[in-house]
Amino acid sequence: MTRTIVESKTKTAVIGFDEPFCVIGERINPTGRKKLAAELEAGDFSTVEADAVAQVAAGATVLDVNAGVVYNSNPNPNETEPPLMTKMIELVQGLVDVPLCIDSSVPAALEAGLKACEGRPLLNSVTGEEERLEFVLPLVKKYNVPVVAISNDDTGISEDPDVRFAVAKKIVERAADFGIPAYDIVVDPLVMPIGAMGTAGQQVFTLVRRLREELGVNTTCGASNISFGLPNRHGINNAFLPMAMGAGMTSAIMNPVALPVKQSEIDAKKAEAAAAGLVLPEELDDETFCQLFGLGSTKSRPGKEMEAIRAANFLTNNDPHGAEWIKFNKAPPKPGEEAAGRGGRGGRASGRRRRA
Amino acid sequence: MTRTIVESKTKTAVIGFDEPFCVIGERINPTGRKKLAAELEAGDFSTVEADAVAQVAAGATVLDVNAGVVYNSNPNPNETEPPLMTKMIELVQGLVDVPLCIDSSVPAALEAGLKACEGRPLLNSVTGEEERLEFVLPLVKKYNVPVVAISNDDTGISEDPDVRFAVAKKIVERAADFGIPAYDIVVDPLVMPIGAMGTAGQQVFTLVRRLREELGVNTTCGASNISFGLPNRHGINNAFLPMAMGAGMTSAIMNPVALPVKQSEIDAKKAEAAAAGLVLPEELDDETFCQLFGLGSTKSRPGKEMEAIRAANFLTNNDPHGAEWIKFNKAPPKPGEEAAGRGGRGGRASGRRRRA
Repeated sequence: MTRTIVESKTKTAVIGFDEPFCVIGERINPTGRKKLAAELEAGDFSTVEADAVAQVAAGATVLDVNAGVVYNSNPNPNETEPPLMTKMIELVQGLVDVPLCIDSSVPAALEAGLKACEGRPLLNSVTGEEERLEFVLPLVKKYNVPVVAISNDDTGISEDPDVRFAVAKKIVERAADFGIPAYDIVVDPLVMPIGAMGTAGQQVFTLVRRLREELGVNTTCGASNISFGLPNRHGINNAFLPMAMGAGMTSAIMNPVALPVKQSEIDAKKAEAAAAGLVLPEELDDETFCQLFGLGSTKSRPGKEMEAIRAANFLTNNDPHGAEWIKFNKAPPKPGEEAAGRGGRGGRASGRRRRA
Repeated sequence: MTRTIVESKTKTAVIGFDEPFCVIGERINPTGRKKLAAELEAGDFSTVEADAVAQVAAGATVLDVNAGVVYNSNPNPNETEPPLMTKMIELVQGLVDVPLCIDSSVPAALEAGLKACEGRPLLNSVTGEEERLEFVLPLVKKYNVPVVAISNDDTGISEDPDVRFAVAKKIVERAADFGIPAYDIVVDPLVMPIGAMGTAGQQVFTLVRRLREELGVNTTCGASNISFGLPNRHGINNAFLPMAMGAGMTSAIMNPVALPVKQSEIDAKKAEAAAAGLVLPEELDDETFCQLFGLGSTKSRPGKEMEAIRAANFLTNNDPHGAEWIKFNKAPPKPGEEAAGRGGRGGRASGRRRRA
């Protein structure tokens, strides 16, 4: 039963075949977040702090930290990313107590992260590329940390899952040459967008199963890649995560947080209410308004993906007696929320079988 | 590639390894529905009619018809159920054009249903019980229809999945003796409540895979049994269905409909609104109120399980180019609904991989 141990100074997260799914929060990453990138260049870490707290509150048990910002003032990440990584890791581990995942394509930033991190962080990542193998695996050995292994190599990302399996196998074998055990390697089989490749889901499920059965390794992925470019991405993600878990996936790098309701949505609903003839009291605050009108909340809260993961933990027998499920769902439904049993079979669930 | 053909007079539903999941609507069943049972005894078929229309509108491609009511005036179902089955089938097939599934534990009701049904209905069910095998399999052969095979026998329902597999295998072999091919047998491996048995999910997933790989048969189940007795049953069901589909399940007997919002929920929300100081116009009708306050609808609509199934169809490559997914999700989110991408990664979904 493969177990990958990731640790902060005080907390342990276990990625394992017989463990609840490990949610690695992805939000602390300026890639594609222009506002965050500008903040970081200006030395403003308020979003990083908020993202750290919100993700842990939503259920992340490991936080990914990526300092991959390209400064306008200095376009060389080899110079700017290592000190930023150090700063961000110090900040995050001063704020929350979960283990971290050091995420960079810049070798010096990985090493800066390893120096700054307390405990036993997860290193993200090695690939099958020769140069990367030769740089990252010695670091993994030196610092005795687990590592994410992405199944692409010098030829790029293959669309053939057998090639991606072979790349993962090569990385595991090369790691063994360095004395790194398979249980310290968490393979990312690479999730393609289902909108671009109809076999993307099946590829991942088959690969995860093979990686688990043939190589005995834990697995992870950038889960939301599956729904890239599609409408109602949550709907796809909420089905993909349980399916991946059913196939044996043991962790994902993902966003556990449902972001606050936007002001524009609140304004639109208020206009809708006014058009229907409602009179709102002046003292009604936005949070009460959102809850009353079923909009959600002005505060961060766990996303629906977390509900899907908790259900799948239960269904893979990694939530003994459903204790976690019941803890998170025991509150009686408020008016305005979907009542338990509505749209389901209610009390007659086992009726069909009664006379079988 | 196993295909089970179910037909009405004008429509074909295919249950198959390379087909979208077949949703068999379960609502037309008085078991555990006291009000419906009383209606049927009184000759009132309005609920049956409404359930037929609503389930097809929500996406059911086959409708289960069960006439298993025990009359107060006559407690012998062998006398009362056959004519009621005939009546219900005539009624339903006059109203909707999808194929039907004739569901009874009373032999004469199965035969009455077969006589009344146009096309090629699914017969529900045979079990591994000797008496049942000897009665149902000749009917299956005589009428040339597919049959649901439930994996219990004279010893009851085993908690050992290997025993349940053996029962299914016995039924398939006995059917072969009658000249009935495996592709006309849809095995129900029996879904236990996860709240009572922590391995219930894993058992089903393993059994479905074995039934598919070793016996080459299609599978079905009473899907909502999995969440019996638990809070937030939808949350469990919405994860279970994609996981079962990922394991190879090809159909389910389930409720595709989200039932209308109850008057008690509407009243509670109105009280909440009043307490917050809102003034509602007198002319505001309940349907507008429900939509405005995010309660849902006073009318039947597709349940969230249908979204999970559509996503899983896409992820198992049974929705070419995501055409169905896009059709059902293309509308821009209304204010008050979860916006696509909120709580997800939005436009930067592939960001993490960009620099891998």
